Amino acid sequence: MITGAILIGREETHTQASYAAINPATGAALEPRFTTAGLPEVERACALADEAAVAFAELDPETRAVFLETIADEIVAIGDILIERAIAETGLPRARIEGERGRTAGQLRLFAQVLREGSWAGLTIDPALPERAPLPRPDLRVRKVALGPVVVFGASNFPLAFSVAGGDTAAAFAAGCPVIVKGHSAHPGTGELVARAIQRAVALCHLPEGVFSYLPATREAGTALVADHRVKAVGFTGSRPGGMALMRTAAARPEPIPVYAEMSSINPVVLFPAALAARAEALGAAFVGSLTMGAGQFCTNPGLVIAIDGPDLDTFLASASAAMGGSAAQDMLTPGIHSAYVEGVSALAGHGAVTTLARGVEPTGPHQAQGALFRTTAADFLADPALGAEVFGSSSLVITVTDMAEALKVIAALEGQLTATLILDAEDEAEAALLLPVLERKVGRILVNGWPTGVEVCHAMVHGGPFPSTSDGRTTSVGASAIERFLRPVCYQNMPFALLPEGLRDGNPWNAPRRIDGVLKLG
Amino acid sequence: MITGAILIGREETHTQASYAAINPATGAALEPRFTTAGLPEVERACALADEAAVAFAELDPETRAVFLETIADEIVAIGDILIERAIAETGLPRARIEGERGRTAGQLRLFAQVLREGSWAGLTIDPALPERAPLPRPDLRVRKVALGPVVVFGASNFPLAFSVAGGDTAAAFAAGCPVIVKGHSAHPGTGELVARAIQRAVALCHLPEGVFSYLPATREAGTALVADHRVKAVGFTGSRPGGMALMRTAAARPEPIPVYAEMSSINPVVLFPAALAARAEALGAAFVGSLTMGAGQFCTNPGLVIAIDGPDLDTFLASASAAMGGSAAQDMLTPGIHSAYVEGVSALAGHGAVTTLARGVEPTGPHQAQGALFRTTAADFLADPALGAEVFGSSSLVITVTDMAEALKVIAALEGQLTATLILDAEDEAEAALLLPVLERKVGRILVNGWPTGVEVCHAMVHGGPFPSTSDGRTTSVGASAIERFLRPVCYQNMPFALLPEGLRDGNPWNAPRRIDGVLKLG
Repeated sequence: MITGAILIGREETHTQASYAAINPATGAALEPRFTTAGLPEVERACALADEAAVAFAELDPETRAVFLETIADEIVAIGDILIERAIAETGLPRARIEGERGRTAGQLRLFAQVLREGSWAGLTIDPALPERAPLPRPDLRVRKVALGPVVVFGASNFPLAFSVAGGDTAAAFAAGCPVIVKGHSAHPGTGELVARAIQRAVALCHLPEGVFSYLPATREAGTALVADHRVKAVGFTGSRPGGMALMRTAAARPEPIPVYAEMSSINPVVLFPAALAARAEALGAAFVGSLTMGAGQFCTNPGLVIAIDGPDLDTFLASASAAMGGSAAQDMLTPGIHSAYVEGVSALAGHGAVTTLARGVEPTGPHQAQGALFRTTAADFLADPALGAEVFGSSSLVITVTDMAEALKVIAALEGQLTATLILDAEDEAEAALLLPVLERKVGRILVNGWPTGVEVCHAMVHGGPFPSTSDGRTTSVGASAIERFLRPVCYQNMPFALLPEGLRDGNPWNAPRRIDGVLKLG
Repeated sequence: MITGAILIGREETHTQASYAAINPATGAALEPRFTTAGLPEVERACALADEAAVAFAELDPETRAVFLETIADEIVAIGDILIERAIAETGLPRARIEGERGRTAGQLRLFAQVLREGSWAGLTIDPALPERAPLPRPDLRVRKVALGPVVVFGASNFPLAFSVAGGDTAAAFAAGCPVIVKGHSAHPGTGELVARAIQRAVALCHLPEGVFSYLPATREAGTALVADHRVKAVGFTGSRPGGMALMRTAAARPEPIPVYAEMSSINPVVLFPAALAARAEALGAAFVGSLTMGAGQFCTNPGLVIAIDGPDLDTFLASASAAMGGSAAQDMLTPGIHSAYVEGVSALAGHGAVTTLARGVEPTGPHQAQGALFRTTAADFLADPALGAEVFGSSSLVITVTDMAEALKVIAALEGQLTATLILDAEDEAEAALLLPVLERKVGRILVNGWPTGVEVCHAMVHGGPFPSTSDGRTTSVGASAIERFLRPVCYQNMPFALLPEGLRDGNPWNAPRRIDGVLKLG
């Protein structure tokens, strides 16, 4: 079932065999060898996607909803082969991979609901006012249409939920955009299995084959995909340098296109005084639980803690240090992620203004992360912006402040973030209220008395934030609103009935919410 | 009342006097002389805007709505001084300027309605599911917040509706963003009068002074505004090179920001066979009426006509040529626009594949436009992309095709456009249906049996389109949806009641439409 193929439309092709997947737990190569797409495959996939774009965009929403559900069914139907391959390629535990499969299917099904509900199309009608003086108003109607072919670069850390059939692919399909996935070399077998599931769903739903292609591609070919004139948007989850390179490529095109890159976040946690006084010990242990989950390989990993120096913080740090000291070494996803983590931790450990509070258990495997907890002062943090760089993995830096006013200064100096976490009790709320207006301008999600890892897939989620956490903080990559990334509005003025798109016709044939003369009406 | 000042917050300042406004009808300089903002003024305006940003963003919608209405009232209250100054600075007729003042006030009032209705805030709530297995769902709530300070570059061709208090400023204010306007040197007195009206409205509404500054600025200072780290978005209406320079500046910042640039559009008109057979003569005259209105200085000016060659087209062209031949020379807005127009027309007239069909009446004033009508074939047009460049003014190129399939090829070869116009009768609808899917991916507004000049300010307007008509075809610069350009979503997870933004609290205190657990509820 895994042949190492490139999938372009309904065909599969092979180039020169070039690499094997690595089991990060053992360092061993996995069978089979995978081939890599180059420029001819990019050309073919883009041509097919372009051919399919109009027909796919103009499908009725119900057919597209069924397509999304069919993909979910086909992924689940792969069964344990998918789970085992993903475990072997990522070193992640079975429960995590099974949960991620559920999430992947769930987000495809959520977008099916979104399509059926109809708000996504932004249907808006201002009827003609033929008698208006001095000039009559024409009949004006707006709906949203798909941008066109989308290229998706999957993440290494979510081999299912942010990869081939992950959030970006689901949102782009929902919007009516053909998708070309640039496969991630960290989980090529998992990628191929899922890509074949999508390929089957395209066939089962009788869609044009160009709706989906899967290119495990070279970096050069990935860049060529973003530069191709037929591609109209890009979704990316990965490193800051990687995302910024794609942003530059997209901006330099004769026709610039949007890049939705999720890149870098250290997710500050603010411990407020009353909460710290009430439960410092329990908080320390819970914090390390969030920090070390999945070897810290989450974009919402709590990489920064801000708290007032004093005995309560000492209690928190003692508890956190004890938990960190007992935290097992865990396999990281790839040798590259592991070496970047080791480098980031070494830089912090060797920094003159940083104290190492605790390290996790010594690694025994080749690519295992040893957790790390560091401490510095607000003054030192503010003096050296490098201390705010993301270290991807279970490393966190505690910043001590003299009061909450200094905490505000630290927050104001941070770059854009996906999340901020407030640990507080009722007595802390007045001080928290002073921080909120600044936090709201820095982050996409503010959470209270929880931990930032764990991102709910629902309508009211924002997984996005100001640069550099993402390239475009006006959108989210998780949840129902992600469909908006891949749509743009088109207005029809005095269009005869027969030429109007179905959703805009009189009588509301889609039974969707529509805004009529400025007034929102439910379907 | 016009002193040539720079307005920063509540203060006014003067630098070295440097230029006078020119009356384009006479070439004469107008009193007084105007001073120009440089880098110190940029620094001061950005600092004030940054200081005001949080307080302005967190105002209740009603207070912001009243602010918008107060600006409208203050502009109208200037009275005839404003009208006369705008006429003198632009050469536009009184009726046009008076209409534009009405439109400017009207769009400010439209955004006041938008704020009161509440959908703009995107209020979305997924209540907690504490019993859900395997994991409970937290309480998640989303609202939209202002991006932060916005820089607006006004257009030369709409001294009121797309300038100091124009659409971009109104939308940014509505969203809760402080605005710094880079004043246009083509109408500095008009600009100052309107800027003072906004300044008065800020004071009357007791808003922080940094909510608005007006910088008649050098090009260097304009670039510095876009590069300033406190600025979070840019609105621009003008030339393609000008817009693209701002896009590059914004993309090269340490924190890239969105640029909403409206740049270049030739607005194709497709004449379908039955309509042409039925009323070629009337269409020719009406077309020239739209083409020459306001000396053709509209971004939606019909610069391209596509029709099947034959006797009906000959009738159309004879009628259009006669109308063009009798069309008066009209003052253009600035010497620069006039010389660019003369250059563009000369290039077409001298092109080997282009025939000059008609010219307007010979100019008598120094900066008057002489209308121009040209003709070429589809094959020649497709062979030379330069023929698709915008000539800003009353110049249009008719492209003859052999059949509607060739028309489709011409459309497919076009760059992105603000509008496309279809002139058709009932018998043409089947052929029009074949063009629509391609047109929808090229343009922001498709209109039938009208002319593209004239843009209604309402809910169902899209004044935007794929690049290069705008830098971001996902949005509109005219109409209620323009507010979305300056907003981004923030999610609140398990936020205590006292810390929740008012609009997200239980009981719907704003009485706004909200999506609860995926279901849209009216206020």
